[in-house]
Amino acid sequence: MVVEILSIGTEILLGDIVNTNTQYLSRRLADLGFSVFRHTTVGDNPERLREAISTALESADIVISSGGLGPTKDDLSKEIAAEVFGLKLLLHEGQLATLKEIFNRGGWTMTDSNIKQAYIPEDAYILENDFGTAPGFAVEKNGKYIIMLPGPPREMIPMFENKAAPFLNRFQDSVLVSRVLRMAGIGESAMEEKVADIMDAQTNPTIAPYAKDGECILRITAKGKTVSEAEALITPMEERVRARLGDNVYGIDNETIESACVNMLVRMKLTLAIAESCTGGLVSSRFVSFPGVSKILLESAVTYSNEAKMNRLGVKWETINRWGAVSEETVKEMAFGVAKSSGADVGIATTGIAGPDGGSPEKPVGLVWIAVCVKGEVVAKRLTLTGERDAIRLRAAMNVADFLRRELLRRG
Amino acid sequence: MVVEILSIGTEILLGDIVNTNTQYLSRRLADLGFSVFRHTTVGDNPERLREAISTALESADIVISSGGLGPTKDDLSKEIAAEVFGLKLLLHEGQLATLKEIFNRGGWTMTDSNIKQAYIPEDAYILENDFGTAPGFAVEKNGKYIIMLPGPPREMIPMFENKAAPFLNRFQDSVLVSRVLRMAGIGESAMEEKVADIMDAQTNPTIAPYAKDGECILRITAKGKTVSEAEALITPMEERVRARLGDNVYGIDNETIESACVNMLVRMKLTLAIAESCTGGLVSSRFVSFPGVSKILLESAVTYSNEAKMNRLGVKWETINRWGAVSEETVKEMAFGVAKSSGADVGIATTGIAGPDGGSPEKPVGLVWIAVCVKGEVVAKRLTLTGERDAIRLRAAMNVADFLRRELLRRG
Repeated sequence: MVVEILSIGTEILLGDIVNTNTQYLSRRLADLGFSVFRHTTVGDNPERLREAISTALESADIVISSGGLGPTKDDLSKEIAAEVFGLKLLLHEGQLATLKEIFNRGGWTMTDSNIKQAYIPEDAYILENDFGTAPGFAVEKNGKYIIMLPGPPREMIPMFENKAAPFLNRFQDSVLVSRVLRMAGIGESAMEEKVADIMDAQTNPTIAPYAKDGECILRITAKGKTVSEAEALITPMEERVRARLGDNVYGIDNETIESACVNMLVRMKLTLAIAESCTGGLVSSRFVSFPGVSKILLESAVTYSNEAKMNRLGVKWETINRWGAVSEETVKEMAFGVAKSSGADVGIATTGIAGPDGGSPEKPVGLVWIAVCVKGEVVAKRLTLTGERDAIRLRAAMNVADFLRRELLRRG
Repeated sequence: MVVEILSIGTEILLGDIVNTNTQYLSRRLADLGFSVFRHTTVGDNPERLREAISTALESADIVISSGGLGPTKDDLSKEIAAEVFGLKLLLHEGQLATLKEIFNRGGWTMTDSNIKQAYIPEDAYILENDFGTAPGFAVEKNGKYIIMLPGPPREMIPMFENKAAPFLNRFQDSVLVSRVLRMAGIGESAMEEKVADIMDAQTNPTIAPYAKDGECILRITAKGKTVSEAEALITPMEERVRARLGDNVYGIDNETIESACVNMLVRMKLTLAIAESCTGGLVSSRFVSFPGVSKILLESAVTYSNEAKMNRLGVKWETINRWGAVSEETVKEMAFGVAKSSGADVGIATTGIAGPDGGSPEKPVGLVWIAVCVKGEVVAKRLTLTGERDAIRLRAAMNVADFLRRELLRRG
């Protein structure tokens, strides 16, 4: 079944809000085995909405919309859908009673525009709204469906999960299961070249590479009658691509480079301390985002000034004076020093020039040194990063975590 | 001029990424005075992309796309656009030279798929990519335009701002100028109530409130023949709404709560040190995101373990033992201790339970204590936050910065 997702609301066209509903619905529909072939957004405009619904129904079997079910004059979704499907809007006594109850309970006065929300297209399958006043619904004509959901995510998501997804179940006799392989230290085109022949020959499972937030990702998707049938198709494909991609793969699905590191450190019974200069707490924050971190992280120091590098980490004045704060020598003393002073087995460190100021011909913006110290043994790496301040900081943070991961891998 | 925004990428249809590009472009195009009448997203599929471009050109004067300019076989945007516009793709010597330079500088090997990125439709106006390998471009036919931008936001945004927006300028005889007022410590509906009568009576300038990433924002937009004419309309409106919103407004446009704090600290000649537990470096990272921070930030300590709180910050064992690590007493000693041990004038601190584990009936997940110490005087505040781990951490980080801001305001 082919699905189009339709978002309705002028505030989306103005860029006042990010359209997270569409992402949510897309991911969930993919999970449920539907092919989403297009997203469309139009404003609260009757003609454009009419055209959007009609156009969507030409190619899609099911149109799922969000937005435009509110009580105001702008909210026209229901009216236009009824018109396109040739259905009357009827006052629904059950919905009216529900609405009255909500208003009584809240001690609010019901207005005519609220009563508008109790009108539903005839023959509609109602999707109750447990978190707001606007019910959703599904209507059908000639085997084509429109399912209308409210716009606010806190109403839309539970309505989708509890009412619309069970309704959609009737259309499926197969499931799609995906596994995502996550990589670091390899570019998108290099990754693709390694699996190009597999991609060319793919049918079921399929593999799709993409890049996201500075990482490379490969999605393996299999179709089967059951989840276990689909998973059985994924496993050999995963082994095949892993053989090509090697150590670049750090994890699957929702893992992060940092969670992979934490899991390795836990397994190897090693504690961690972090020293940051240009990344300014970002490395630490990314590690702390993973709940398991409390087992291994002792502390982090953001030693932004030279004094802090010396006082907190024991970096030598001579080192900073001779080589500078952004240098192989300094970053090594930072990683060594933070491990030593905190009593951690492993220390990692970053120092660099994130810009926009502070660069020189010899040490340009984007120059970052990273280091890993494991039980007193220190290795360092020089990075040349591009982009704006926060992009440089992000990539430095990802690089130091990957550097740690590879160092831990090497040591088994 | 009517614009359609077209997003290209199967990963968007699968819900793997949120389509932030479309929001960004929508907001900026509204700023520039263009009417965006539709958003469409299609996958990396030649037929659907061809259809999407052709359909868009029926109603729009300008189609602005993002995505599909990468080096892989999936990336077809350029090829399909050239076909729809009846243009040949030609190897562009200048772009090839630029690409070669990027690869040389990075020490990478250029592949055939990379060379594909140097092909540009004939007669195209090239939009250079200063942050990646895929150039953008604009082409015209019969007075209709397509402007193609790369998908990764860190490439798309600077290309739009520095290359596409100046190109688009030729289509406008009036300008829209916006000023965004940013608030902390006030909810969206409370903000809206304070300015409801102004909103009802608005014409030029208009005001639009919205909430984003836990902040409240009010956008004032004026239309004028020139930028200065529009700005002259904005100023009295800004004064009017500021009088209503008071201290909740921390800044305008691209300011952050942290940059507002940094500017106040610089003005007051005060240095800062940060001690974090549950936020794990996020407070520090948000401060370091603002380049001016180096003038006032001495250091930060992520004291995740109790030992680190005692050793690094001098929190007393008795305090942790009696009141717990998440308590008013501990957070105060953290703020005091980080200021004292680093020699900073101001210390700020966070300690809390970010979850998903570690909560108890007495101290549930979401309980966070924050503190500010200015020249030895400490104040603390208890927060009860909801949401998942990273949401709790983010709101704790924003709250401690706002707490510092209000404390500095109070002291003038």
